Amino acid sequence: MNILIVHAHPEPQSFCSAMGREMARAWQSQGHTVEWSDLYAQGFNPVSGPNDFTQRANPDYLVYALEQRNAVKTNSLPADIASEVDKVKRCDLLVLNFPLYWFSVPAILKGWIDRVFLSGVFYGGRTFYDRGLMAGKRAWVTFTLGGRSNMFGEEAVHGDIQTMLRPLLRGTLGYCGFTVHEPFAAYHVPYLPEAERNSIMADCVQAAETLEDRPVLRFPKLEQFDSDMNPLK
Amino acid sequence: MNILIVHAHPEPQSFCSAMGREMARAWQSQGHTVEWSDLYAQGFNPVSGPNDFTQRANPDYLVYALEQRNAVKTNSLPADIASEVDKVKRCDLLVLNFPLYWFSVPAILKGWIDRVFLSGVFYGGRTFYDRGLMAGKRAWVTFTLGGRSNMFGEEAVHGDIQTMLRPLLRGTLGYCGFTVHEPFAAYHVPYLPEAERNSIMADCVQAAETLEDRPVLRFPKLEQFDSDMNPLK
Repeated sequence: MNILIVHAHPEPQSFCSAMGREMARAWQSQGHTVEWSDLYAQGFNPVSGPNDFTQRANPDYLVYALEQRNAVKTNSLPADIASEVDKVKRCDLLVLNFPLYWFSVPAILKGWIDRVFLSGVFYGGRTFYDRGLMAGKRAWVTFTLGGRSNMFGEEAVHGDIQTMLRPLLRGTLGYCGFTVHEPFAAYHVPYLPEAERNSIMADCVQAAETLEDRPVLRFPKLEQFDSDMNPLK
Repeated sequence: MNILIVHAHPEPQSFCSAMGREMARAWQSQGHTVEWSDLYAQGFNPVSGPNDFTQRANPDYLVYALEQRNAVKTNSLPADIASEVDKVKRCDLLVLNFPLYWFSVPAILKGWIDRVFLSGVFYGGRTFYDRGLMAGKRAWVTFTLGGRSNMFGEEAVHGDIQTMLRPLLRGTLGYCGFTVHEPFAAYHVPYLPEAERNSIMADCVQAAETLEDRPVLRFPKLEQFDSDMNPLK
């Protein structure tokens, strides 16, 4: 299996960065191939805008998704986007590994999604969720956070973690057709003693090694909706 | 009232950009003061990282939130962050106006949040939600999207829009103590004829003019949790 780890932490010594390396080592030991997009190390530019297009469909008025479609059609994507798209196309499993900032991905990773998840390649007008163009590939989200595990859950102060992550898990990965495994959360890591961090790292590596057995999230199926996206009863 | 519009669209002629301008005009007619953070026009850098700190608490290992706290304490924030923090401190109403990318804010706005919403200024260890440090200020999210309104709702293909926006509405604005009004969504605008766009613009302006009457979202109150953040029964 070909695995792409997209990693977005500014501190190479961080627990999050170590999680990425340990997962990679575990998968390589199992015979898998691991590619990396280390966004801070690459100096990835997260700002989507007019400079992403050398041949505009409409040079006078920018609609980003429409220009993405045109750039795909005219094969005129900038090199930094094209190489990331190629990595995703090559992978069987996409891993997003990052520190949770504001219950979401850091901006550098949000911009990787904004610029790389192209209209016409990852999804189309009526080709999303189970019909998304990444159907057949799997995705996994792994992250560190300052909050403690008791802060998440039905009755907890922040509610359910998967609901908080819905725009990423469902609205992005699920939308594009990925089969999305339950995320791995490393709670409270900046404040934990070494022994507890080691225990979380062992859990993370084991989760990586047995990922195929990890439950997957359920998303809508488009056959339950008509062509105007109204629900069929 | 002092209003800060944080705007994040790469096309100044866009409907979204016009929404920002029309809201500003309406508020100014009512006697309010409007300040802008036009992130694309400013060339705002959204990438949080070690360069945000000139005097590190720990030069050898970066924990971003801890260095934020230290930079606040030592008054050593970089100018581009400090000036944005000052704008938020001055405002009574914070408006985030943007095109919805992946059911979330564009990366340039995510990075504005990552870098500007400082630990120790916007929130603290046990000072969030109704105890968040922005309590007393209001916030409003206004956005454009390609999707149609029938795609959102209890039975709809993407579910409820406010649930999809939870990390922003609750996890960011609510977390910091802002009173958050129901968002304004301008659906399907890239594909609508002029007359329908004009109608949406009129709705947006009216919503802005009558914002104080617009319902506010409900978030947890920390008095319902003990000091370990376990729910009190």
